[in-house]
Amino acid sequence: MSLRVGVIGGGQLARMMIAPAVELGVELRVLAEDEGMAASLAATAVGDYRDAAAVLAFAHDVDVVTFDHEHVPQPVLRALVDAGVAVHPGPDALQFAQDKIAMRTRLAELGAPQPDWAAVTGTDQLQEFLDAHGGRAVVKTPRGGYDGKGVRVVSRAEEAVDWFTALAEDANGGALLVEELVDFTRELAQQVARRPSGEVRAYPVVETVQRGGVCAEVIAPAPHASERLVEVAARIGVGIAEGLGVTGMLAVELFETTDDRLLVNELAMRPHNSGHWSQDGAVTGQFEQHLRAVLDLPLGDPAALAPWSVMVNILGGPTRGSLSERFAGAMAEHPEAKIHTYGKQPRPGRKVGHVNTVGDDLDDVTYQARAAAAHFDG
Amino acid sequence: MSLRVGVIGGGQLARMMIAPAVELGVELRVLAEDEGMAASLAATAVGDYRDAAAVLAFAHDVDVVTFDHEHVPQPVLRALVDAGVAVHPGPDALQFAQDKIAMRTRLAELGAPQPDWAAVTGTDQLQEFLDAHGGRAVVKTPRGGYDGKGVRVVSRAEEAVDWFTALAEDANGGALLVEELVDFTRELAQQVARRPSGEVRAYPVVETVQRGGVCAEVIAPAPHASERLVEVAARIGVGIAEGLGVTGMLAVELFETTDDRLLVNELAMRPHNSGHWSQDGAVTGQFEQHLRAVLDLPLGDPAALAPWSVMVNILGGPTRGSLSERFAGAMAEHPEAKIHTYGKQPRPGRKVGHVNTVGDDLDDVTYQARAAAAHFDG
Repeated sequence: MSLRVGVIGGGQLARMMIAPAVELGVELRVLAEDEGMAASLAATAVGDYRDAAAVLAFAHDVDVVTFDHEHVPQPVLRALVDAGVAVHPGPDALQFAQDKIAMRTRLAELGAPQPDWAAVTGTDQLQEFLDAHGGRAVVKTPRGGYDGKGVRVVSRAEEAVDWFTALAEDANGGALLVEELVDFTRELAQQVARRPSGEVRAYPVVETVQRGGVCAEVIAPAPHASERLVEVAARIGVGIAEGLGVTGMLAVELFETTDDRLLVNELAMRPHNSGHWSQDGAVTGQFEQHLRAVLDLPLGDPAALAPWSVMVNILGGPTRGSLSERFAGAMAEHPEAKIHTYGKQPRPGRKVGHVNTVGDDLDDVTYQARAAAAHFDG
Repeated sequence: MSLRVGVIGGGQLARMMIAPAVELGVELRVLAEDEGMAASLAATAVGDYRDAAAVLAFAHDVDVVTFDHEHVPQPVLRALVDAGVAVHPGPDALQFAQDKIAMRTRLAELGAPQPDWAAVTGTDQLQEFLDAHGGRAVVKTPRGGYDGKGVRVVSRAEEAVDWFTALAEDANGGALLVEELVDFTRELAQQVARRPSGEVRAYPVVETVQRGGVCAEVIAPAPHASERLVEVAARIGVGIAEGLGVTGMLAVELFETTDDRLLVNELAMRPHNSGHWSQDGAVTGQFEQHLRAVLDLPLGDPAALAPWSVMVNILGGPTRGSLSERFAGAMAEHPEAKIHTYGKQPRPGRKVGHVNTVGDDLDDVTYQARAAAAHFDG
């Protein structure tokens, strides 16, 4: 009998669990939102993840339920737990990924380093925060944001009036999260795997390069990272995984500040774009690690296979034709590139694939990944 | 539109094409012999590969047909080609993998180094060969043998009488292949990928360790291999791929003799057990490479990711319970091991999975692979 993992959501993160599931010999079952999703090969059901009955029916004969995204409502998660289904990460942890104000509040309790922040329920409070932080700040909707959506840099409180109005009925009573604009030199990401019985493994801290609020490139490990930085990042990641009771993969997005501090930017309780490099660059890729973690199996070695790994996203994809029509050019010029595509229709700004490269020379590894990915543009 | 590869046969080789197909974004469709085969996740049809109508129906809307095994009869292969289907490897190449006498004859024409051999149609001819080669030799049925089946070491011609009788109606007119017993120090395997438009890539030559006629372990690259040996092995592999017109992956099993020659033992025109190490140990694993080759896409870099890779087969598997019940022990003790299982029922001697490890120290890499695989025994 195979172990059976049920994944709610049929996007590319679910899709990228298929390969390690097949290799290990784990049966992956996906509840997809629709036909023809990225993970359709493993889709055993199509249904609405907000529909408790549909989710319960999907979950009734799997060993554990996990997720392609963090949007499954708490009542649905609780219904699963009440029905005796193993859910990883569980609702108690996921609430902190679903609500950025809850996350900031809990991280503060844990003593994790964060930007200054406040929950503000109106323009007066927001203006107060702005005045106290140099006149500019980042406003975020507590729920539903991703890839730069639900995030706005403002210098006047009025710029968030529409969000206050829209959120008046929200669980946070209309509060928005406001955060100081951190003076950072770069963005990092720390991934940690944690299994229900407690074992934790930290991946090497990586540098992430964002463009337009979307992850564009990842370099693993983060270049010029001191031993202290590597240790501090891992300690922050492990502390959050344990403090929030995360099971499965956790990604902690970090700012490295001009005064050498690390501050927590965002969390994701699932495999994450900042860890795609590990598919080809680590002994245990994040998708295999996530399966092991949620099944409460011993975790794999997260060590890198080579001095450098670089991941470059394919954003948007070809304006004409399909991704596979670009294989020949990319492969001919970059035989060392690992090309990943997600079975999604190209569309401006959409993540439709990525390229990983590994090697000894960072300049070369970076060049190969960028140049191979560029074959899929335009 | 995705590229579509149709695989005839639903065994573990087809299964192991699934992961790279999903990662690249190639649609894999499998014609399986039965429900519940190793590659069932990708099975789009169940049917008899000897039935031309079933195979043609399966093949009508794929970009290329390839194989999990070499047993599809020539008339079926020809019917595909006649219908305009791209078939790789094609029937002209596959005939040499299907008939060992045809293979020996053609390799002789190509000047590839081989053991002494003869096609013998009766006990008198066989005895003559035995007398000329020290009184012992290897007798093989020309067709249908694998993993030590259809192979017999004899010292008297009478020991092959049953085979002569059984093969009287065979395409070779009842001939058996007889080969000298080679005085070899070890067995090696050379893999080569070749695409229809001609590009060829040679993998590092590996050492294979057989037990009871079945591959038990593979070490990549072959230890203590001189530069000359590496070159000669690659030259033999490339020469055969080109000489026989092989497309896709070719494995050439070789004897290294006590007098430092390499002699061709067997051929396989598909991904091969001797290349499973490449899934985790090479930039481009053999299953991805096979897909690229049969699609006539540029080939990937076959270089090793680490100084040493070791593959140990899981033969038979647990006598009690399932393979996945052994995950916890194997993973806890060997976090660096890459465990592969094939979704097959354990049965004595059956290949049900393998373990790959990579690293800098051959002793350690070998120990970890063997010890992790041993968790699945007994």
